[in-house]
Parts: sequence; structure tokens; C-alpha cells
Amino acid sequence: MVTHFEFALSRKPRGYHIITSEILANIELPQNGILNLFLKHTSAGLTINENADSDVRTDFESIFNQLVPKNLPFLQHTMEGPDDMPAHIKSSLVGCSLSIPIIDGKLALGTWQGVYLCEFRNHAGSRKLIVSIYQ
Amino acid sequence: MVTHFEFALSRKPRGYHIITSEILANIELPQNGILNLFLKHTSAGLTINENADSDVRTDFESIFNQLVPKNLPFLQHTMEGPDDMPAHIKSSLVGCSLSIPIIDGKLALGTWQGVYLCEFRNHAGSRKLIVSIYQ
Amino acid sequence: MVTHFEFALSRKPRGYHIITSEILANIELPQNGILNLFLKHTSAGLTINENADSDVRTDFESIFNQLVPKNLPFLQHTMEGPDDMPAHIKSSLVGCSLSIPIIDGKLALGTWQGVYLCEFRNHAGSRKLIVSIYQ
Repeated sequence: MVTHFEFALSRKPRGYHIITSEILANIELPQNGILNLFLKHTSAGLTINENADSDVRTDFESIFNQLVPKNLPFLQHTMEGPDDMPAHIKSSLVGCSLSIPIIDGKLALGTWQGVYLCEFRNHAGSRKLIVSIYQ
Repeated sequence: MVTHFEFALSRKPRGYHIITSEILANIELPQNGILNLFLKHTSAGLTINENADSDVRTDFESIFNQLVPKNLPFLQHTMEGPDDMPAHIKSSLVGCSLSIPIIDGKLALGTWQGVYLCEFRNHAGSRKLIVSIYQ
Repeated sequence: MVTHFEFALSRKPRGYHIITSEILANIELPQNGILNLFLKHTSAGLTINENADSDVRTDFESIFNQLVPKNLPFLQHTMEGPDDMPAHIKSSLVGCSLSIPIIDGKLALGTWQGVYLCEFRNHAGSRKLIVSIYQ
């Protein structure tokens, strides 16, 4: 049995944001199952990473900008600004879907794991997320 | 209940190709569920990205080639040609599996999202895909 | 119906390790379904790649170290050693979850596909994995 919850996340600035609580506030978890996250966008992404020291998220921004610099001279898709094409690439590097086990009525995340929304655009609107639960 | 559809995609040149329609032509969607894609290869990949401007896909080729250049001097796995080891790395960067919600009998993709087959080899054969649907 | 198996993988040195057999030794596969893997860590990852020539795994180590070098001068999260922040980034590049179809009582992997544990830390403990099966 698959149940879907579709909603918009609150609008966020460029950067890496922990959204575990925001997700949980919008859904109901069963006792047992799997939760699938699907972000309906191509210039933002989802990943799981450290939920404690916020310096990790600052370093994510710096390192991904070094990996995929803006203004690469050979780019053709430049109409939407210098942050757009790098955002598409970063989105495919981290991905737009994730699966997390649900055990004993809770997400079975590791101690240090949180769900990140990776906002790669300078001025994006709110992002639409589908949470699908199968049990 | 899980149903699998296994088939070969049409053979494609090196590059990034939207395969959403080709997938849908080979399967039947239920009203509600989740679709999982699994590519049975290690030198190609699957990702979701922009389905409109084809320049995005051209820039994917350029940027991924810059990220993972051919002929890195320290490589040991070189027997199968200079495109092979970069293809393995790119495959793990984008991944070989994806999950997409099925709502109202359709894939619940965002407006600008399409499924890409990322063909990283210069001269690959057709690629085998498993589409698994749970409802 | 979703069944979970949670266990610790044997401790592994830094590098890329095929764990397909170790996973199968800890679970029971049904005839049909999907297997989801979830690694409960943020400085290691899971990916699927070549299971034959071990040079591929050696080259994974070299290429990922070039992609995400240690001691980048702008990093802020450095308390846990120079291998820590690169490990977080690499973990998000490959991901911590994977889905594989189960057909005829076996994982429907391609001929050359194996599941890798990517150990990005120099001296990590054993890593906890959740295998979830839905049928």
C-alpha cells in the first residue's frame, strides 16, 4: 500500500538545509515501512548528511562550488544566469530521490544523519516535495 | 505487490538522452504506486534533469568530462580504453537506480523533469533496464 | 509487506569494497520484490559498480581523492581530521541508499555489477546497514 503526501517546503536561501523536522511535520508515519522522498525540481537536490556541526553545510557550499564552478567558458545553457547550469549538474550529483526505512514508527536514520534540501539557485521559490510511504 | 518489466533500451550514442517516453512505452502504470528504475550496467547511469533545452544535455557532457577527465596519469584500469574508467566513475556519481511516485495513473514528475539515460561509453551496445512497480 | 534486516558490516579499511555476498549472508530473499539498502552513516557510502577487475576499485580511490582533495584551504569543519570533510562530500556524491530488484529469488544485478561499501575515513569502525525488502 502506497500513500503520498505532496507539499511545498518553506522557501530557502541558496545553501544546504536540514529538513528532517519539516518533512515529519507534514506527514504521518506508520509503525513499519519505507519512506521515499522525491523532489520535483532540477536545480535543487536531496541528500543525507551530518546533522550536527553547521560548518559541514558551509563546507558543502564551498566544495560543490569548486567542483562545478560558475562561468565555465564552454557552457551553452546560460540564459537563466550563471547559477543555473551548475545547479542542474549539482542536482544530478546528489540526486532528487531518497529512501529511508521506517522502523518502530520512526525514520531509521543514523545518529548523525539528517535530510538536506540542497538549494543550488541564488533566488529560487519554494520547492515541491512528494513523500511516498509504503508499508 | 511488485511487478517487474525488463527490456533493452534502443542503442544510443555517447551523451545524455531523455528516455521518459521510451520507458512509458514499455510498461503499464497503475493508478497509484512507486516506480523504481534499475540499469544493469556500470558504465552508464540514470538521472533526472531538465527536459526542455537540449543545451543542458550538451553541457552535461562537457562538465562531466571536465569533472572526470580521460587519461588521468595514475589510472590502472585502462585495458578497455580511455573512456572506460571515467565511465565507471560517472556511473557512480549519477547512480543506476531511481524512484518516482505514481499518482493518478501518471509519473509524478515536476514540470521540467525528464529521465536521462547517461551513456558514458564511446561505443556501447543497448542497455538493459528493469522497471519495478509497487502498488 | 516490508521486512527489515539491520546488522553491522565487518570493519573495513579505507577504500572500495564489494559487499554483495556479505549482504546476502545476513538476509533471506523472497522470490520477488525489491531490496533497499540504507547505510546509517555520513562519511561512508553505497554504490553499484564493477565486480571483476580490482583495479577499478583502486582507481575509484584515486579519482575521488582528486575530485575532493583533503586540506582545501577554505574548509571550516576540520576538527575531526583532514579525511573527515572530504568523506562527507564523497558520501553525498555516491549516496547512502540503493534499490535493487529481486527476481526469481535473486538480486537482478547485471553481470558486472556488485554492491560497493565506500569507506571514506582512514580509521572507521564497522558500519551499520539496514536491508529492507518489500514484496
